[in-house]
Amino acid sequence: MALYAKTVVKLIEEFEKLPGIGHKSAQRIAFYLLEQPEEKVKTFADAMVKAREGLCYCSVCCNMSDREVCDICENAARDKSVICVVEDPRDVAAMERSREFRGLYHVLHGAISPMSGIGAEDIKLKELVKRLDGEVNEVIVATNPTVEGETTAMYISKLLKPLGVKVTRIAHGIPVGGDLEYADEITLARALQGRREI
Amino acid sequence: MALYAKTVVKLIEEFEKLPGIGHKSAQRIAFYLLEQPEEKVKTFADAMVKAREGLCYCSVCCNMSDREVCDICENAARDKSVICVVEDPRDVAAMERSREFRGLYHVLHGAISPMSGIGAEDIKLKELVKRLDGEVNEVIVATNPTVEGETTAMYISKLLKPLGVKVTRIAHGIPVGGDLEYADEITLARALQGRREI
Repeated sequence: MALYAKTVVKLIEEFEKLPGIGHKSAQRIAFYLLEQPEEKVKTFADAMVKAREGLCYCSVCCNMSDREVCDICENAARDKSVICVVEDPRDVAAMERSREFRGLYHVLHGAISPMSGIGAEDIKLKELVKRLDGEVNEVIVATNPTVEGETTAMYISKLLKPLGVKVTRIAHGIPVGGDLEYADEITLARALQGRREI
Repeated sequence: MALYAKTVVKLIEEFEKLPGIGHKSAQRIAFYLLEQPEEKVKTFADAMVKAREGLCYCSVCCNMSDREVCDICENAARDKSVICVVEDPRDVAAMERSREFRGLYHVLHGAISPMSGIGAEDIKLKELVKRLDGEVNEVIVATNPTVEGETTAMYISKLLKPLGVKVTRIAHGIPVGGDLEYADEITLARALQGRREI
């Protein structure tokens, strides 16, 4: 015999599919929702469907957008000579929060990963090459410091250098506020390689 | 300028309202969803609305149910002389998983908490008293071992004893597989008080 009504079991299963949510959390969330007024649950469900429905990729940078061209690409104040390449839309948000970068972005939607069968043609690289119309003189590769991110960075470097574009990579090292003692060897090695005179 | 489309911001906010989900998790979940096919997102939203819509409280035990009387209350094989009182529907599921209890349940939907302004009349106590029709000879109080749960247990005991019903409380002590060293003082004290000859 089922412990819950079938519809509740179904709802728990749906929540379990979400990243970082196990069975216990899914249960807790489902029951929390079921205790809410019906109206609130509908608002939530609506928010979900509407966010997904209205969404498309910006035709310039491939970031998620609710319009043909996203806010950043449309913004005349941004520096159009630099493109920062990231793996996914969340990375754009992270970069924007740093308030350090005033150029444009390009979202790859993934990274090259031969292990998972993701090749150069599976991410938005063609779209990046198309944007190099002469106005762009630097491409900053801000893919993650993982095997896949590094592979992608190398690939982009090899792909774009012949086109006469400067390709740079963001620095990797000890995070600000981090503790040397707890840094892993690879990060420490990168921090040493990237040392600068002060 | 917003980092995300308005609909996406709204969706992240909705996820943040859920218990145990902070801003970072909400973002991660929202983006995960937005990467799913529109059909899947709709299925999820539907599951949410349907689970909530179809839901009511069992007219006997007040557990969540999709019918007037829930499966457990309707089950002729269950022992109708014992009622186990719990705080919420998840506790019913937890008890059922133990496969130790074959009686009926009563879900209070909360516990008495003067601090939060929840009194005896705010939880399903009247409904419990109504069920004591002579057939019931034991009420097992399985509210949580918190101040609120204990208060509620005491209240139920005082309320039902005059009606000639045996009121018992589940045992509290060291969890099976737990380590004495890490048990808090209150649990240890309870374990000692509840000792039995072996």
